[in-house]
Amino acid sequence: MTKTPKFSRIVEALPPTVPFVPPEEMERQFGRKVILRLGANESSFGLSPKARAAMEQAAEESYLYGDATSHELRTKLAARLGIGTQHLVIGSGIDELLGLIARAFLDPGSGVTTSEGGYPTFNYHVEGYGGVLHTVPYRSDFYNDLDGLARSARETRSRLVYLANPDNPTGTFYTADEIARFRKQLPSDCLLILDEAYVEFAPEDQIYPIDPDDPQVIRTRTFSKAYGMAGARIGYAIAHPEIVQVFEKIRNHFGVNRMAQAGAAAALEDVEFLRQVVQGVKKGRQEYEELARKTGVRAIPSHTNFVAIDAGSKENAQALLEALWKQGVFVRAPQAAPLHRCIRVTIGTPEERRQFAAVFEKIMQTSPTS
Amino acid sequence: MTKTPKFSRIVEALPPTVPFVPPEEMERQFGRKVILRLGANESSFGLSPKARAAMEQAAEESYLYGDATSHELRTKLAARLGIGTQHLVIGSGIDELLGLIARAFLDPGSGVTTSEGGYPTFNYHVEGYGGVLHTVPYRSDFYNDLDGLARSARETRSRLVYLANPDNPTGTFYTADEIARFRKQLPSDCLLILDEAYVEFAPEDQIYPIDPDDPQVIRTRTFSKAYGMAGARIGYAIAHPEIVQVFEKIRNHFGVNRMAQAGAAAALEDVEFLRQVVQGVKKGRQEYEELARKTGVRAIPSHTNFVAIDAGSKENAQALLEALWKQGVFVRAPQAAPLHRCIRVTIGTPEERRQFAAVFEKIMQTSPTS
Repeated sequence: MTKTPKFSRIVEALPPTVPFVPPEEMERQFGRKVILRLGANESSFGLSPKARAAMEQAAEESYLYGDATSHELRTKLAARLGIGTQHLVIGSGIDELLGLIARAFLDPGSGVTTSEGGYPTFNYHVEGYGGVLHTVPYRSDFYNDLDGLARSARETRSRLVYLANPDNPTGTFYTADEIARFRKQLPSDCLLILDEAYVEFAPEDQIYPIDPDDPQVIRTRTFSKAYGMAGARIGYAIAHPEIVQVFEKIRNHFGVNRMAQAGAAAALEDVEFLRQVVQGVKKGRQEYEELARKTGVRAIPSHTNFVAIDAGSKENAQALLEALWKQGVFVRAPQAAPLHRCIRVTIGTPEERRQFAAVFEKIMQTSPTS
Repeated sequence: MTKTPKFSRIVEALPPTVPFVPPEEMERQFGRKVILRLGANESSFGLSPKARAAMEQAAEESYLYGDATSHELRTKLAARLGIGTQHLVIGSGIDELLGLIARAFLDPGSGVTTSEGGYPTFNYHVEGYGGVLHTVPYRSDFYNDLDGLARSARETRSRLVYLANPDNPTGTFYTADEIARFRKQLPSDCLLILDEAYVEFAPEDQIYPIDPDDPQVIRTRTFSKAYGMAGARIGYAIAHPEIVQVFEKIRNHFGVNRMAQAGAAAALEDVEFLRQVVQGVKKGRQEYEELARKTGVRAIPSHTNFVAIDAGSKENAQALLEALWKQGVFVRAPQAAPLHRCIRVTIGTPEERRQFAAVFEKIMQTSPTS
């Protein structure tokens, strides 16, 4: 009969849940080694040698706290993006920034709109701060339902609406015009969180332009995906200066790793490395599309470093997921309809793709989707 | 007339404040270079070469997320501390863990007791989650007033009481018996946060023993100080398993840098390096004590990697702080009485101490404390 002191009302009421079980924990739980790690959209292409060198050099100085204002990185990002440093807040990954946003904008009971089957960690933070989720199913073509999201935001008086673009877990992408139209449909007291974790993989001329003084849009971006620095934990948000000022009142000021700051600043400079990654990923997407076609299923056209493969039914997708896992292939499968027909596979290196194709074809021959 | 969407009630009401202005920002604001960085209790002795090598090696793999459960590090810590992994939660430094504790235990208006002039970042988090601070002045001998803290906890029905031991910013230390006596004075619904950031510098046989199944005590520890890894951002809390389980419901699961995890695990093994740091710091404390004596002031006996020097009055301390800063020496001075008579100086390397002594003696000759 232990008696811990009382927890907060919000926290006490939360169910025991984690947004993702990491592959290391799956290995331990199942006593099985992950052979192909293609489930977390990490960049198999690694990180820029320049970023790595900067991190190694910073390791020597890691007895010093990093700059709590991430001044150098913010200055470089601002120049690159054509905005001011006052529009930028750095966090230890988008996950932390989504938590910060939820905390800054939600009172207990505040409504929040997102797609059903959208990013679980966003939902985790919303519920963790006492927000109430209103979800809108994906369209049958696996696109986010923008009209539905805007309608939900209005009808539920949501304070936040979340949209990943390019989308995770589908890989779909909305152009600047489509996002602009969506933005206009939102009530004036609703904030759009545009999660652009995969933006570097999208067609540059079709990305919704940055208007950093729009008080109703926050964009989140990261060095975890195209820059290949997931383990470094560093990302940023672009927001109206008044919003950034409010984050200053609550954020964990010394939370960003010193090596990550140095690595991110160096990664930004290595434009050629990024170009190669984006190129390599594009090639990988084509291979996965071809592989899907060859095995009688369909890949959803992707603008990210992963491809969602439509296995035709929830049962097929689950069977596929399990068959892959038995072979040590770690991928993920969304749980909500209609996405539950899909498995999501990260674009690996050419060698990883070869290995994945071999396992996948073999499984498909013994017909989990027939 | 910008109109941002509405912020949460708690956040809206917060004043614009940051717990600490980093030295990099002070340099920019004053247009002055920090020559001696002795204000943040970073370890001038650096980090273990083994930890550094482990971090450099992990840099190569930093395209992969770190293990969200920090399994390896928790396993090693548990073995070292004679507890179970279920008693441990890893965070990106004690700062993050203090935020997590405040969030887990505080409702808006919940009372919290701490020393007046205690760790500002703890206060920042308490207020950031809507808690109400009740502060108890330090005793005139610069020790935390344990009886006063326990009385305040009872009278204000505080949910949390914070005590740093060894203490920051004074360097004082309470033995196991004294902490045990304090623990017994607390009401059964009050949680003691024992911040042991500097515990490696304390006499080992006098440290309050770990009872990980005590539901009323959380201890926070870090790799930032004796282990010299402040920039890596990694620390841990030791708590009752039920409390750890509750943290699992709200913590940022993928928040800890992969290199930091590898570095911390390696640092734990390098017992000899730690011994040398503790030894070197001890020597440095003696030097600072001697320097104080020589210049007509008094050093508070310290059990940390810094020394608080009592300049005799608030005015003296401020004059000293400013005179040092003019010479590019970055130290800090607490603001609350009676601590405001002191400046707090980190133990530097022998060379840094030599430089500090030279500047300090010169200033004292031209008498800011006479």
